[in-house]
Amino acid sequence: MIVGHPCFDIDPWSLVENELPLDMLPHAESLFALSNGHIGWRGTLDEGEPHGLPGSYLNGVYELRPLPYAEAGYGYPESGQTVINVTNGKIIRLLVDDEPFDVRYGTLVSHRRVLDLRAGVLRREVVWTSPAGRTVRVRSTRIVSLTQRAVAAVRYEVEPLDGPARLVLQSELVANEELPVHQGDPRAAATPVDALVSDLNKASDTRVTLVHTVRRSGLRVAAGMDHFTEVYDEQGQAQTDVLGSQIESEPDLGRFTTGGLLKPGQTLRLTKFVAHGWSASRSLPAVRDQVDAALAAAGFGGWDALAAEQRACLDDFWRGADVEIDGDEEIQQAVRFALFQLYQAAVRAESRAIPAKGLTGDGYDGHAFWDTESFVLQVLSYLDAPSVAHALRWRHSTLPAARERAEQLGLAGSAFPWRTIAGEECSAYWPAGTAAFHVNADVADAVIRYVRASGDAEFARKEGLELLVATARMWVSLGHTDQGGEFRIAGVTGPDEYSAISDDNVYTNLMAQQNLLAAVEFASRHPEEAAELGITDEETESWTAAAQAMHVPYDAELGVHPQSDAFTYHERWDFEATKAEDYPLLLRYPYFQLYRTQVVKQADLVLALHLRSDSFTAEEKQRDFDYYEPLTVRDSSLSACSQAVIAAETGCASLAYDYLGEAALMDIDDLERNTADGLHLASLAGSWIALVAGFGGMRHTAAGLSFAPRLPDGWNRLCFGLVLEGGLLRVDVRPDKVGYRFTGEGGLSLTHHGSEVRVEPGTPLILPAWQPSERAAPSQPPGRVPAHRVADSVRRDAEGDAAGGS
Amino acid sequence: MIVGHPCFDIDPWSLVENELPLDMLPHAESLFALSNGHIGWRGTLDEGEPHGLPGSYLNGVYELRPLPYAEAGYGYPESGQTVINVTNGKIIRLLVDDEPFDVRYGTLVSHRRVLDLRAGVLRREVVWTSPAGRTVRVRSTRIVSLTQRAVAAVRYEVEPLDGPARLVLQSELVANEELPVHQGDPRAAATPVDALVSDLNKASDTRVTLVHTVRRSGLRVAAGMDHFTEVYDEQGQAQTDVLGSQIESEPDLGRFTTGGLLKPGQTLRLTKFVAHGWSASRSLPAVRDQVDAALAAAGFGGWDALAAEQRACLDDFWRGADVEIDGDEEIQQAVRFALFQLYQAAVRAESRAIPAKGLTGDGYDGHAFWDTESFVLQVLSYLDAPSVAHALRWRHSTLPAARERAEQLGLAGSAFPWRTIAGEECSAYWPAGTAAFHVNADVADAVIRYVRASGDAEFARKEGLELLVATARMWVSLGHTDQGGEFRIAGVTGPDEYSAISDDNVYTNLMAQQNLLAAVEFASRHPEEAAELGITDEETESWTAAAQAMHVPYDAELGVHPQSDAFTYHERWDFEATKAEDYPLLLRYPYFQLYRTQVVKQADLVLALHLRSDSFTAEEKQRDFDYYEPLTVRDSSLSACSQAVIAAETGCASLAYDYLGEAALMDIDDLERNTADGLHLASLAGSWIALVAGFGGMRHTAAGLSFAPRLPDGWNRLCFGLVLEGGLLRVDVRPDKVGYRFTGEGGLSLTHHGSEVRVEPGTPLILPAWQPSERAAPSQPPGRVPAHRVADSVRRDAEGDAAGGS
Repeated sequence: MIVGHPCFDIDPWSLVENELPLDMLPHAESLFALSNGHIGWRGTLDEGEPHGLPGSYLNGVYELRPLPYAEAGYGYPESGQTVINVTNGKIIRLLVDDEPFDVRYGTLVSHRRVLDLRAGVLRREVVWTSPAGRTVRVRSTRIVSLTQRAVAAVRYEVEPLDGPARLVLQSELVANEELPVHQGDPRAAATPVDALVSDLNKASDTRVTLVHTVRRSGLRVAAGMDHFTEVYDEQGQAQTDVLGSQIESEPDLGRFTTGGLLKPGQTLRLTKFVAHGWSASRSLPAVRDQVDAALAAAGFGGWDALAAEQRACLDDFWRGADVEIDGDEEIQQAVRFALFQLYQAAVRAESRAIPAKGLTGDGYDGHAFWDTESFVLQVLSYLDAPSVAHALRWRHSTLPAARERAEQLGLAGSAFPWRTIAGEECSAYWPAGTAAFHVNADVADAVIRYVRASGDAEFARKEGLELLVATARMWVSLGHTDQGGEFRIAGVTGPDEYSAISDDNVYTNLMAQQNLLAAVEFASRHPEEAAELGITDEETESWTAAAQAMHVPYDAELGVHPQSDAFTYHERWDFEATKAEDYPLLLRYPYFQLYRTQVVKQADLVLALHLRSDSFTAEEKQRDFDYYEPLTVRDSSLSACSQAVIAAETGCASLAYDYLGEAALMDIDDLERNTADGLHLASLAGSWIALVAGFGGMRHTAAGLSFAPRLPDGWNRLCFGLVLEGGLLRVDVRPDKVGYRFTGEGGLSLTHHGSEVRVEPGTPLILPAWQPSERAAPSQPPGRVPAHRVADSVRRDAEGDAAGGS
Repeated sequence: MIVGHPCFDIDPWSLVENELPLDMLPHAESLFALSNGHIGWRGTLDEGEPHGLPGSYLNGVYELRPLPYAEAGYGYPESGQTVINVTNGKIIRLLVDDEPFDVRYGTLVSHRRVLDLRAGVLRREVVWTSPAGRTVRVRSTRIVSLTQRAVAAVRYEVEPLDGPARLVLQSELVANEELPVHQGDPRAAATPVDALVSDLNKASDTRVTLVHTVRRSGLRVAAGMDHFTEVYDEQGQAQTDVLGSQIESEPDLGRFTTGGLLKPGQTLRLTKFVAHGWSASRSLPAVRDQVDAALAAAGFGGWDALAAEQRACLDDFWRGADVEIDGDEEIQQAVRFALFQLYQAAVRAESRAIPAKGLTGDGYDGHAFWDTESFVLQVLSYLDAPSVAHALRWRHSTLPAARERAEQLGLAGSAFPWRTIAGEECSAYWPAGTAAFHVNADVADAVIRYVRASGDAEFARKEGLELLVATARMWVSLGHTDQGGEFRIAGVTGPDEYSAISDDNVYTNLMAQQNLLAAVEFASRHPEEAAELGITDEETESWTAAAQAMHVPYDAELGVHPQSDAFTYHERWDFEATKAEDYPLLLRYPYFQLYRTQVVKQADLVLALHLRSDSFTAEEKQRDFDYYEPLTVRDSSLSACSQAVIAAETGCASLAYDYLGEAALMDIDDLERNTADGLHLASLAGSWIALVAGFGGMRHTAAGLSFAPRLPDGWNRLCFGLVLEGGLLRVDVRPDKVGYRFTGEGGLSLTHHGSEVRVEPGTPLILPAWQPSERAAPSQPPGRVPAHRVADSVRRDAEGDAAGGS
């Protein structure tokens, strides 16, 4: 747990680290990762070592690895795609009088790193005394540019503090770094070794360019770096003639060396620009030129311009996206951290996937899952529409692979992969992979939501329609109409990965229903494009018929929806006999035990209660939630936010607050102890979902936009923004009132606690708040109760009481 | 198809091959395999080449191989056991004037191989003209001794026919033979390379001994050979002083060479004794001595004694086991071939498994499955009780591994492996492996049947009781009592491998029920031993309660039993769109499609109709059979016999006859095109089951022994024997009457067509036959109708009619 750990400060606009425990390095590297969705740099120390996992990633760059099967089966993918660590451009090594700067040796007098969520930079300031006794101050600032997609940069400054020192900086590009070996957690990555084959290395002046080909995938990657050096005094005056420099390159190494003898008061500053590029098809000269051009452009503008652009870009984002909280400083920090990470994971991903861990680590092999559409895009649809359009266009671009997969599986339309980088199925365990067909409905759900939020008719007409149609076609071929006339979908796996190959998963069926109806609606809205796709009236009628006849199992005896057919007949997991250290269960119990019992890894039926809110009555929601809470172990980071949403809706605000805390602090507090492998983007998105869909009570269905805001006990304010059809709605929830302010064209109709209202542009609408009464919350499995959370004021009161009493 | 192929003769007591098409070599090697359950020699040519698959197997000798998983899971076996080709002692190479005898070169003037089912030998007679024009006759006889477990032998004779010839024989022991690479059929073996590491090689006089250790499993294998040579003339007079000889050995080779210049009329005879031994624990000298001793003993007795013992042993077997048929010569031959193969697979297996393919090939990695208990032992329980006791004692000896596996899976008692050689689970795909818990009930079923047939109280008291108790304990921990008080078993896989992870598989539940009740009965019969196993009244009551509350799903609307819960709601497989070449479906369709649809690989519910005959009414059987017939594709060789049994019972004798043909000719006709990998022992057993349980209508339940004999149309006789409690019952079915003759102590009560009768020893009971009326048979999936079969007389009449009409 980091919060509460002395090395982390709580700050509303940054993540601050004040100490450097070496065992927390891998975790911190993920938290301090910078990315723009195209380039990802983990937050390793500038000097490269010590490190947890050195990671430089380029979105879409992967290696192929054979997927072995002791028992083969038809349709099993033969090779998987694995993200690779590309050429590392972050490294700047420092020698102080021949002693390498390494925090493990000498004395680390002070250490501070700050991830600035408004500036979009990672700053570091260190005072270090070498083993020989010389003390220096090192400051660095790292940017992965949100505006110049191919560019990252480091400004590195060092000054001797207690006497003259001979300082040498080695700025490097390193390919094929040695990586730590993973320890058999299936959620970690299968790391390819020496994946990069050198094509070219070139050094001249202050620049180096390295070009490599990825061994089996054949992708070509290039990295370049350029340097600017200066020495300045305490007054900021530049000093001349004190530095020497060298440039060199080898197949897997580029190195620029500079240095000289500096006195206290003098600072050596190195500004390093790095450019990354890759291509599956372009020639070596083309890829090299692309990198060199990006480097030149960054150098022309210089450091200050890059930093200014960065801040301007983020200012623009925060204007619409910021969430303001008065009542819980940790959550305030966490949600801004979350939104920053979501934004930087997506903003320049441009026609590539947004992986489950963004570009912050190699966990899950760098694959994208349904997490993207169902969680990340759910949030970004209201905060940064262009990113969502890009992400969905990426899905659309993988339709050929999805069509081929569907054909291989004997289905019509498209079968999107469970996990992938480039579009091909990379799941080697089909019961928890390919069988999770809901990913298709999740893509459709994201299309529907994006179009609903953005009003992007151009997208709807083209990619949107085609995605809905391909998935609708899949559903009618996957399901069938039984003798009683009901449409059933058998043998699939829902979101809960502790059940598999079930019949009529309620989530899947309801999401498929929405998918089918949306396909009908989009087709009727765009008849010309529908005709081009070969859609006939007969076909849309079959979609409507399937949707209308969709079987939704219900256990009348218990009065609850079984997650899938027969689920409520299964034996209940023996939670009482399960110890805290047995979680996550998948690492300690065989699938067969998990599958045949009532134990839920992650919200499944409860996720349906949220995403298909209109398909359940309030009473059903409450009964269902109460039934599944004691069964849900949250061994997935995709669960807490959905539970927060339904807890809030069903009158368990305190429980919702606990789940909000879990979702929001998943990575900052390393709750699943695997943040080292990369951030959990879906859980980060979940912190916003818990706040906005949970406490804001926001739903955005075919029936329109609605809110049912309530504040957690002890909060004074929750304010969030939604970008809707180009306009901006800000919702400001106070204990006694709720303000809706819309900036944009036209007005906005919405429902406030069940009453339809209209918000006119520029005119805030102030409505009375309504705090529903709190009911007794259902229990959770023993040992899996979320950490209880209270507002800052409540905590301080309690602490004050305790202090007073002592 | 071999029957009808000109190279095979139909003969009531042998399998005869008259030609040698090279593409049929692999198939013939399986058919002509000799074994005693301990040693297995595939029917390769004496000279070693050409070959399909050279195979010498020792029961229980395996190599370990890592089982790779692209996505790991808890409880997945990490290494598998694979049968290996041990030292080959079959080879005798012949040089004729420096030309190696190789049927691919020169001219094969005549060729004949005969597997003699009474003598228990494989005979070969060849006339061959060398490329240089010299013609020789070669005769060989091969024995794998049923009486001397470690011994096999070859008698090899060669004579020049058309002029003097310099003949050289090289008799060899060869380790680490090069093997053909398998082509990706999951049913084939994963062949380890160079598995044998030499420990010792020793040559002296006419003997060679080779000792090796299997590389990873550490098992030690030894092989020895000794030789006797002579030359005799046309009168059988021995000639002297014409032969030279040499002996030599290398780590992987032993070679005895002999030869000389022979004239026509002179025959060179080499008698080769081979001994095989292995041990997991004994020392190198001990294993070597064991082999040398066996070799010496065989040599002392000599060839003639070995051959005489072999015939005497088989005479004894056939006395009880023979099935006589008047009406279908092919089936007569096939069923004797089947019984011979079952017998030689089991008779000396002694405390080792009987693999699915016996020791006739390396298919399925040499693993034993439930096939053994449910099919092979079902038959042998009535034909060779000692083999069954041995086989069940082997299962009993694997209880420690099964208990460990159960514990790993979170279950009580034992979880027997889906596939194994030594007892550990070797299945790398759990939904169609570990999840098939019915294997435990199948073991119990075999125990119950064996004790019922043999009356072996000693076995019942010890191993029998312990097996029933361990499996009963597993069932109560696997299942649970639902809110309605029914006992349910969720998430398991039944016999039909085209469904998996289902709830309440009828076969599994009914077999578990029988298992539980038998455990109660055995425990009450042996209270002392039960107490030693820690069984309390409370525990046996829990077994009774579970058995009585066992949930057996029934679809009241359709009036049939769903194979598993919800099966009848699934979509029907699109049989109409499935082409003949798409079978077996598992090679062309993904599991997920097979699992979610109504398509049945092999009898599952229909097998329950047979093995739990007393749990269904006649009407239910008919409706169930009619429901499953059109869904059952018989992609498994374990299906036709069960379908034959229920077809016969439900009044579809003609269809039963067709299925009998399929079961009986599975290997002879290579119906699944993979007999090359080894014989299908379960299907061979199935030919007897189809005859005895099908046309004989035999059932042997807790209620007693019953028959309902009926003859296939056009047959004059079906006569079969059952060894019961040491006595022998022979049932002689004629068109108009049925004779029961019992030889043994006491008498025998049985039911004949529903009437209880008693057979007194020595006094044949002749009862009237009853041929039930034939009803219209249900249909099969298009392209999967079994080949129609008629009695010889009917066929001859039809041919006569056709001839008359032409």
